[in-house]
Order: sequence, then structure tokens, then C-alpha cells
Amino acid sequence: MTDPAEIAAANANPPVFDEAFRDKFAELIAWRRDVRRFKTDSVAPELIEQLLDLAQLAPSVGNSQPWRWISVDSAETRARIRANFLRCNEIAASAYQGERAALYAKLKLEGIDVAPRQFALFCDRTTAQGLGVGRQTMPEALDYSVVAMIETFWLAARTLGLGVGWVSILDPQAITTELDVPATWKFIAYLCVGWPVEHHVDPELVRHHWQDRTTAGRIVLSR
Amino acid sequence: MTDPAEIAAANANPPVFDEAFRDKFAELIAWRRDVRRFKTDSVAPELIEQLLDLAQLAPSVGNSQPWRWISVDSAETRARIRANFLRCNEIAASAYQGERAALYAKLKLEGIDVAPRQFALFCDRTTAQGLGVGRQTMPEALDYSVVAMIETFWLAARTLGLGVGWVSILDPQAITTELDVPATWKFIAYLCVGWPVEHHVDPELVRHHWQDRTTAGRIVLSR
Repeated sequence: MTDPAEIAAANANPPVFDEAFRDKFAELIAWRRDVRRFKTDSVAPELIEQLLDLAQLAPSVGNSQPWRWISVDSAETRARIRANFLRCNEIAASAYQGERAALYAKLKLEGIDVAPRQFALFCDRTTAQGLGVGRQTMPEALDYSVVAMIETFWLAARTLGLGVGWVSILDPQAITTELDVPATWKFIAYLCVGWPVEHHVDPELVRHHWQDRTTAGRIVLSR
Repeated sequence: MTDPAEIAAANANPPVFDEAFRDKFAELIAWRRDVRRFKTDSVAPELIEQLLDLAQLAPSVGNSQPWRWISVDSAETRARIRANFLRCNEIAASAYQGERAALYAKLKLEGIDVAPRQFALFCDRTTAQGLGVGRQTMPEALDYSVVAMIETFWLAARTLGLGVGWVSILDPQAITTELDVPATWKFIAYLCVGWPVEHHVDPELVRHHWQDRTTAGRIVLSR
């Protein structure tokens, strides 16, 4: 929506989100999962386009919209990314001992071998868009904008029944080199996208007995 | 939901998000705004509690849930935060010249003087929750988890008609000192929450002629 008359008309009649919608939205939040177990079925390109359109409306500092998308499509590149993960995960695994190490070894932490769509997300730290508003004291707000966009995309994907898995066990420098992006792009996230083998409301790490949720983040201190 | 039988029953019957819901959700994404113009009307505490419950279900690396909430309530503390903003914004303003500087001076970039609820969000970088999963190569994923939670909270707030404004023109070190939080907590965001003076679909910075949206973030490169 860019036509001023259309915007004025819309603004005169803002949407109302009723209780039925709010209840369903609460379900959406509860049922978004970090998915690592994907079917091999492909995802219609129109669905991805639809998600990208919505994600563009995510918040960003100074309206900078600094997210940059790389669709990782070639089998070769995916194999290199997966090798990156395996290297990093081997080191990560060595931090655990005994039963915990055995449990860690059984966790499935990515779906790079199967997920039909895979995206690397970067932040263009040098974008002129936004003209610098809001990011002089906290330039990391640009990175945060990419994350807010990812969460928007993630929720929207779940409304279509699509699963998203965020892989963070990666060497970001190696990813940047492997994907041949400008050096000013900062690697933020690697997303696997596809149809989940199963929908479930309990998070993977709860489900597979790594740990339960905490309540520490629910406490609000007053100042 | 923590009872295994209840979870199993839920998992046997996952929700479906139909086209009507998806259309309304697309509206929600489009109508979420960064709000700086608030009414003075108070927000019922139950609404905030409801939002905090939902936000707890946001994604986090290794299910670490590292977000830590400070509700900034005292007039004195708010005045100090606002002074922090004014200092930072004066420096920020000096980066612009001529007409652009005049336009910047007219932008309203925060609502700290009016917003009935204000929250500082921190990331507990040392939380044991998650037992380190997913954050060895990219510890910043903890900060990103707080941001994904904020976007979840933001959208949920909008379903209630509540506005959220993210203030990033702040000296994070001074905020941490002013709010007397553990040194291991990293400042992520300052949120103003309240009833918006007006709902509108066009972003503040577009509406006030700072700049239009970009399409750069809509481009997907293939590798």
C-alpha cells in the first residue's frame, strides 16, 4: 500500500482483532516450533513469496529493513554448510560429559540434509536506508531488526503449516565466505524451511528431555 | 501446558490456521507500528500479564529464554532514562545538515514522557538455562532470542489495540547502571507500551516524510 488516498482510507478504518482471533493467535504462538525434522516434499514458490512479502512489514530500526536473503539451493553449497555445522557441533558436543554428552549426541539440531528450502540471513550493516535513524548509540539494533523479521516470517510460515528451524551452531565467518556475500553483511541466522514431519506443541528440547522451560524470564522487576 | 497426557492429547490434534485467520494475521503484521504517541490512559495489569505469558513462548536458542524484564515505574527513573535519550538524540541530530536536520528535529522518536508502561529488556548472557545448546559459536544468539520475544510481545500487544515503541537512541551502558541490574545482563531494548493516539498502517518515518520503505530486503539471491 503506497497510494496516499488508499492509506488515508485504510487509516480511517483500522482493523479490530477480536477475541476469537486473539485466541487463535495465542495458539499460533504456542504451536510455532523450531523444526529440525522435515518431509522431503517441496514448498510451492508462491508460499515463500507470500511469506517474504509479509516479512517485509516487520519492524526495523529507522525503517532500515537491513535483512538480506540468500536462498541456499545448490547441493554443493548445502553440503559445505552442513560440514560447517558438523565441525562446530563436534566442538560443542565436547563441552558435555557422561549422560549429558550421550543425551546431546542424540539431539537433532538441524535439518540441513532434508529441508527443501534453506536461507541464510544477513544484516547489511552499511545500508543507507533509514539514514542512520536510531542506530548511532546501538548499531546492533540493525542486527536485531533482522531477528524481528525472522520471528515475523516464522509465525507466518506456521500459519501455512510450514516449519522453520534456526541453525546457530555454525561458524559465521566461514558461512560469509562460503556464500560469497559482501564483507559488510553480518551473518545472523541460517533457516531451514519445509513441511514438518509432525506438529507438536512441546519444544524439541523439552520433548527430548534436555530440559524443561524456565520461569526466570517471566519475572518482572520494578525500578 | 506441562502435563504429559495433556501435551500428548494436544499433539494428536494440532490447530489448523485457515485462510480467514491468515488474512487477519497478515493485517496484524501490516498494522503493527512503532508507536511514540500514547494516550495517558493506564493499561490494565491483566493485559500485561497476558502478554508476558504469551511472550514466554517465543523462540530462544537452546530454549534458554534469556529475556529479563525491568518495569520502569518510578517518575525519577523515567526522567533519568529520558535524559539519557535526550543526550544521545542531541548527538544523533548533529549528524544531519540543512533541511534533513530540520526534518530530524521534528521527528518524534520516543514516548517516554507519556507511555503508561515502560520496560527495559535485558539478555542474561550467563543463564544456565539451555545448558549452552546452540550458542557456542554464536553467543549473540542469546541476544537474538530476546529480540524474537520482543516481536512476539509486540504483535500480541497489537491484537489488544496496544501500541509498543522501541527506543534505541540510548546509551546502553548508562541504562544498565541507572537500572542497577547485574553486570552480566546485556541491554537489548527499551519499550514504551500504551494506548496509541491513533492507529495507522503507514510507518511513522514514512508518514512524516523521512523516507519510504525500501525493496532491498525483498531481493533473494541464490547460491
